[in-house]
Amino acid sequence: MSESIVLTRGVPANESFAIDDLVECAESALRDYGTTILQYHPPKGFLPLRAAIAEREGVPVEQVILGNGSIQLLDLLIRTTLSPGDVVLVERPTYDRTIKALRRAGCQVHGIPVESDGLAIEALTRAMQRWRPRMLYLIPDFQNPTGATLSAAKRTAVMSLAAQYETLLVADLPYRPLRYWGQDAPALSDCGDAPLVQMSSFSKLISPGMRVGWMIAPEPMIEAMSTLVESACICPGMIPQGMVYEYLRRGLLEPALERLKALYAPRLRACLDSLERHVPGAHWVKPEGGFFLGVTLPEGITARAVREGAKAQGVTLSDGGAFFPDGDGSRFLRIPFCGVAENDIETALTHVGAVIQEMSVTGR
Amino acid sequence: MSESIVLTRGVPANESFAIDDLVECAESALRDYGTTILQYHPPKGFLPLRAAIAEREGVPVEQVILGNGSIQLLDLLIRTTLSPGDVVLVERPTYDRTIKALRRAGCQVHGIPVESDGLAIEALTRAMQRWRPRMLYLIPDFQNPTGATLSAAKRTAVMSLAAQYETLLVADLPYRPLRYWGQDAPALSDCGDAPLVQMSSFSKLISPGMRVGWMIAPEPMIEAMSTLVESACICPGMIPQGMVYEYLRRGLLEPALERLKALYAPRLRACLDSLERHVPGAHWVKPEGGFFLGVTLPEGITARAVREGAKAQGVTLSDGGAFFPDGDGSRFLRIPFCGVAENDIETALTHVGAVIQEMSVTGR
Repeated sequence: MSESIVLTRGVPANESFAIDDLVECAESALRDYGTTILQYHPPKGFLPLRAAIAEREGVPVEQVILGNGSIQLLDLLIRTTLSPGDVVLVERPTYDRTIKALRRAGCQVHGIPVESDGLAIEALTRAMQRWRPRMLYLIPDFQNPTGATLSAAKRTAVMSLAAQYETLLVADLPYRPLRYWGQDAPALSDCGDAPLVQMSSFSKLISPGMRVGWMIAPEPMIEAMSTLVESACICPGMIPQGMVYEYLRRGLLEPALERLKALYAPRLRACLDSLERHVPGAHWVKPEGGFFLGVTLPEGITARAVREGAKAQGVTLSDGGAFFPDGDGSRFLRIPFCGVAENDIETALTHVGAVIQEMSVTGR
Repeated sequence: MSESIVLTRGVPANESFAIDDLVECAESALRDYGTTILQYHPPKGFLPLRAAIAEREGVPVEQVILGNGSIQLLDLLIRTTLSPGDVVLVERPTYDRTIKALRRAGCQVHGIPVESDGLAIEALTRAMQRWRPRMLYLIPDFQNPTGATLSAAKRTAVMSLAAQYETLLVADLPYRPLRYWGQDAPALSDCGDAPLVQMSSFSKLISPGMRVGWMIAPEPMIEAMSTLVESACICPGMIPQGMVYEYLRRGLLEPALERLKALYAPRLRACLDSLERHVPGAHWVKPEGGFFLGVTLPEGITARAVREGAKAQGVTLSDGGAFFPDGDGSRFLRIPFCGVAENDIETALTHVGAVIQEMSVTGR
C-alpha cells in the first residue's frame, strides 16, 4: 500500500508559501517598523495594515480590526455581541468552528440548507419569521464545506431579509479571492443595506501559520471587541501584521493570487473529473473556486462506512457530522482539494468510488 | 513645559529591541522551518521551542504549551479549569488583567496583602481555611505592581498551604530573569510539592509585540487548553515562535539578559534614589529587579490627587485602583521604570514629591 492520502483539513499547499518574499518582508518590517511591531500595541492591530485593508475594501479605517486569524475575531464578535440563548442562523452544513464558538457563548444555532446556489431562501424566510435571529453567519463564496456560492439573486434576498428582521449578517470571505473560473458574484454590500460584518484573512492567500485575519464591522462593535482584546490578550501578534503590510505594499499579493489559482485550479478540475468518472450515484456542488467540495453520498451509503472503507485503501477522509449544527451529515463528505496533488486526488476518489460501488453491490 | 513623561505601562525600552538579531532569526526560521511555521499547526505550539523551554525548566515537553503571550494562556487555563463561583486568591495588589480574566469567568476573587517580602502568610492561611480556594495566583518575583519578591521562607509556607488545601498554585514569572542585584529566591518547585502551574513569556526579554508566552502545567490541563485553542483560534502565531526558537538556539538570550540588566538597573537605582530624596512620607518596596515599583502615599494623600497634580507638571501616572481586587488602592501608585530614562525618572519623581509636599502643606 502506498503512503496515505489525507483529505481531511483545508490547508494551503506547502509549495504555495513564498518563502523568499516573506523573508524580505520580515526584514523590512523589522527594520522599518521594529519599535512599533516589537512593542506592546493598541488592540486593533497595525495601523498601516488596517488602512491598507480599509482602502481595498472601501470602508473607513475605524471599521477595521485585525486579529490572530479571522476565527479569533469571530469569537470576539460573538462574545461581545451575543448573549446566552440568542438565536443564530448558519448554513447547514457550515464551518465547524463557528458552530462551536456560538455554542460556547450559549447561543441556539439553527441550520438553513445550502443548495448549489447557496442558502435555501424559503427555509431562510421561515426561519427569520420564526426566530427573528440576532445573527446570520454565512460563507457566501465557495462555502466551507460545500463549495457553493450564493447567487446574485439570493444575495439580494438575504440582504433584504436581514434588513427586515434587523439580523446582523456576518459574511466570512476567506475564499472569495480564489476564483479559478467563472464570474465573481457581487459583494453583499452591493446587494442591499443590512447590518453587515465582513471578515477574512490572509491564511488562504499568504500563510495560515501567520494568523492574520481582519474584520470590518460597525464602530461600536469594533470598540467592544478591542476592549476585550486589550483585557484578554493585550494585542494581536504584530510581527506577521508588519510582514503582511509589506507584502501588500510591495504589490506581492496580486501575483501570489495568480500563482495560487494556477496551482489550485487543476486540483479542482481533477476533483470534479474524478467524481464524475469514479463516484456514481453521489451528488455534489460544482465550485468554481475555494478550497472545498462537498459530496452527498447515495441513499443508504453512510460517510462513516465510506471513511472506513477508504481508510483501508490508504485514504483518510474527515467526519462530516461536525459541519452540521443539528446532527445529520451522515451522508456528507468534505473533500479539501488544495493541499493535494492532482494524481493523489484522482487516486483517492477512485478508491472512494470503488468503496461506494462495493457497498451498493453488497447492499451494505 | 517639556514633553510629557509617561509612567503608566510596564513596557520594555524601545532601545532594548535587538533588531539585527531578530532579522537573522526571522530569516533562519522562515528558511529552515518555513513549511512548519507558515502552515496550520497543532495547538500546543512549535515543538522545538516547547522542547527548548522544557529542557531549560527541567520538565517533560508534554507539560509545555505555547501561546500568544502568557496572558492568553492564563485566560485559557481559567476557562478550562475554573467554573463560575469558584474562589481564587490573588495578591493585593496584583496584575489587573488577571483580575479581569477571573471575573469574566465568573470567579470570586479575594486579595491577600503583599508585604515587602511577599504575601502576608497569616492572612493567606486564614483565607485558605475559610475559602479552600480552587486557585492561588501569584507573581513571586518582582511582583507586578509592587516589585516585592516572595522570600524563601514564605515560598515554603505557600507551597505547604497549597498542598494542604489542594489549591492550584499559578506562578506568573515574567520578571524572574531580570534581577539587577542580590540573590535569586529559590524556585517554588524547590520549596515543596503542591499542584503548580508556572507561566512566563519572552515579552520582557525579547519583545512583547511578538506575543510568545509559555505555560508549564500538568498534562490534563495542557490537553484541555489545547482542545480549546484548536477550536477557538486553531493555533498560536507560529512565525514569532520560530524566531524565538532561533534566538535561543543561537545563544542570544543570555547576552540579551545582560544587556537588559545593564540598561534597567540604573533606572531602578534612579527610581529608588529619587523616591528617597524627593518623596517624603511615602513608603515602597525596594525591588532588586523587574519592571515595577509600588508606592503607597502618605495617609490622607490620594493617588488620584497626586495624578492630577503630576499631570499639570507633564507627568502621566496610572490609576492604581485596577490592581486591587476589592476596591482600595486609593493611595497606591505603580511606577514602571524600565521604559523611561534615568533623568526622566528623576524629573517625574521630583514633580510627584513636590505635589505631595504641596498637598501636605495645604492639608488637602
